[in-house]
Amino acid sequence: MSQTLPDTISSGQFNACADRIATTARALAGKGWTPATSSNFSMRVDADHAAITVSGRDKGKLGRDDIMLIDLQGHAVGTDARPSAETALHVQLYRRWPMVGAVLHTHSRTQTVASRLFAADGVIRLQGWELQKAISGHDTHESVLEIPVFPNTQHMPELVARVDAWLDAGRPLHAYLIDGHGIYTWGRDLAETERHLEALEFLLDCELDLRTLRAS
Amino acid sequence: MSQTLPDTISSGQFNACADRIATTARALAGKGWTPATSSNFSMRVDADHAAITVSGRDKGKLGRDDIMLIDLQGHAVGTDARPSAETALHVQLYRRWPMVGAVLHTHSRTQTVASRLFAADGVIRLQGWELQKAISGHDTHESVLEIPVFPNTQHMPELVARVDAWLDAGRPLHAYLIDGHGIYTWGRDLAETERHLEALEFLLDCELDLRTLRAS
Amino acid sequence: MSQTLPDTISSGQFNACADRIATTARALAGKGWTPATSSNFSMRVDADHAAITVSGRDKGKLGRDDIMLIDLQGHAVGTDARPSAETALHVQLYRRWPMVGAVLHTHSRTQTVASRLFAADGVIRLQGWELQKAISGHDTHESVLEIPVFPNTQHMPELVARVDAWLDAGRPLHAYLIDGHGIYTWGRDLAETERHLEALEFLLDCELDLRTLRAS
Amino acid sequence: MSQTLPDTISSGQFNACADRIATTARALAGKGWTPATSSNFSMRVDADHAAITVSGRDKGKLGRDDIMLIDLQGHAVGTDARPSAETALHVQLYRRWPMVGAVLHTHSRTQTVASRLFAADGVIRLQGWELQKAISGHDTHESVLEIPVFPNTQHMPELVARVDAWLDAGRPLHAYLIDGHGIYTWGRDLAETERHLEALEFLLDCELDLRTLRAS
Repeated sequence: MSQTLPDTISSGQFNACADRIATTARALAGKGWTPATSSNFSMRVDADHAAITVSGRDKGKLGRDDIMLIDLQGHAVGTDARPSAETALHVQLYRRWPMVGAVLHTHSRTQTVASRLFAADGVIRLQGWELQKAISGHDTHESVLEIPVFPNTQHMPELVARVDAWLDAGRPLHAYLIDGHGIYTWGRDLAETERHLEALEFLLDCELDLRTLRAS
Repeated sequence: MSQTLPDTISSGQFNACADRIATTARALAGKGWTPATSSNFSMRVDADHAAITVSGRDKGKLGRDDIMLIDLQGHAVGTDARPSAETALHVQLYRRWPMVGAVLHTHSRTQTVASRLFAADGVIRLQGWELQKAISGHDTHESVLEIPVFPNTQHMPELVARVDAWLDAGRPLHAYLIDGHGIYTWGRDLAETERHLEALEFLLDCELDLRTLRAS
Repeated sequence: MSQTLPDTISSGQFNACADRIATTARALAGKGWTPATSSNFSMRVDADHAAITVSGRDKGKLGRDDIMLIDLQGHAVGTDARPSAETALHVQLYRRWPMVGAVLHTHSRTQTVASRLFAADGVIRLQGWELQKAISGHDTHESVLEIPVFPNTQHMPELVARVDAWLDAGRPLHAYLIDGHGIYTWGRDLAETERHLEALEFLLDCELDLRTLRAS
Repeated sequence: MSQTLPDTISSGQFNACADRIATTARALAGKGWTPATSSNFSMRVDADHAAITVSGRDKGKLGRDDIMLIDLQGHAVGTDARPSAETALHVQLYRRWPMVGAVLHTHSRTQTVASRLFAADGVIRLQGWELQKAISGHDTHESVLEIPVFPNTQHMPELVARVDAWLDAGRPLHAYLIDGHGIYTWGRDLAETERHLEALEFLLDCELDLRTLRAS
């Protein structure tokens, strides 16, 4: 893939982002959270740009050449490659929050099943789990962590509008699920975002197990 | 194993197929989808021939010598080795569809359990999962993906007849389950077939999980 | 460990058995089937002797020195080491059947849970699974494979008597479970015994999954 | 990290403890039992000191520098590093029992779900499992092994008081769960503590599976 960079971004800067994304993608693929070329990942490069996975690549074999530059309107910059179909959901987060440094979207079995199970409620409410403290800003298991579940659609602007509506209503948002389709989460940098993703997967696993066991 | 090739097939061509099948078999065995020498795999070599796994080998240790040449009537070509007992199901697909380039049959726990659970219905209907888009020809989660479940039998012509009857009725077919016995799926080439198999396993996993959770 | 051999058994012969047992033990430990030093494994050396794991060793780190020689009354031969507490169950099988060449006892989560669930029935009946064909002597999924579940006891002669009673009643026996305690299975050689064990674990997994799903 | 040692503890002695803890931590992290920097581990160094994990480190990447020295009141000794927030629960055990040589606190999915499920009962009673014999002092599956479940709190003295109250009532204690938060267990040395932890995870897994299956 040929990637020309703007004067304000050095190749060292872009390559460091691309390598970090690729390493993370291979690790998440190794856990089985990116089945059949699903999932996409991005990192902020500067105030106006992000690096994101090229559409349709196998995340278990991702390398530097599978990452491209985009602006925060989601357009390719300096390349003919096509960014992930869901790029609009990534750049929405970078535009709204200057502090957001990375966005991860995965598609694990647990994330997918939880999204179907709670789709009618429109939200999963987590409470009483010590690991909620792994989400930045949470310092006790007693708080309630709400994760909305939005209806799936192949039309991205509908999803962008649902995220905007949730935030415009002043509700806290650390992650969201899309029905039958997996999770989006983010953080100040890639390390914090990976911690959020690991904790959310664990919490969803526990919530589903407990639901089955309580019924028995 | 001694394998003599017809003049129209070079040893390079056959060996490339055999190596690709063996690599895929070892990867699928590593996931636990080929318990106790079950499962079989094939690739089309040309318009009249396919390469297929020899009967009864441990799929976790498969090498080039465990792959043999057959014609599309399922007869061994240039070897005394015995092809998989279910060869008739592979060649049926190559004969009906010139575009089919590979066929994979595995026997995972999920495939096996799902086949028993839906045997009385005779079909599993998948809808609302984003990953249905991983099946070629599907571009939305809103379509219905039907996977028939055929009764098991030790007599292959019965199974061949059931597949023919489904297709002759004009129903779409991307994969089928055999009751208590695993899945068959195929594609234009081995990479597409592997993607189909990975997506179908994921979808069946999700469908079974959701069924248990919805009852709780 | 110091192991003196009788004149009729060469060190090469004993060491080959010990190495085969150790390799198998490490592989089964890697699957999590031997938690906390549980499980024991043996191979026939000749008409009057077997090699068996020394009591209480971590099966994930087993080496040649963790294997000792016994006679078919279960007594140590040429060593001060203590054989597994359940040695009587191994030698019972070698005495009754000259064809038995290896015995494996593991303690997986699935084997343990299945034994508790079916303890009151005293037997698990498997039918309709293609993988039943992996058990020697079975050539169709239509047969019924019965696996008895015996009550657990710390007194080995009680268990020996239950196995004898089952066999003396003329009932087929390929494996048995002990309540809360895991499985015993055997075969003509270690390879066949490993195939039996792998197939039985798979069949028990499927049977438990199907039971949960059918109730949902 | 800079660690100054008291004259009575050699650097070889401290480093041996630190390396053993780090190795164990990485192994437990590899099983997924320490999600998102949770969990903490310690070993007794002498009658008045223990080595413990520094707060907030990723347990999958733990090295010697992530371990620090504390006294048995839980204060840092010879370092500015901050010990785990739950240090008070470790030193309580070293103070009460001179025989205790290691304490492990993990946070697996099974431990976490079991703690929620049995929180209202305040205790899990295990009986009939052969693997109860892996807990020191238990020599039959017929005994009852009680594991209390204490309410979670961010205030450690409350938990210390609950453990004291259980012990002051003269009830046996080999491990305890904290609601939504994982398990604590201990032993004479790290090897025995690891065996206890492995056996308890297995027993909780089995107990939860059996509960779901018995309801089906």
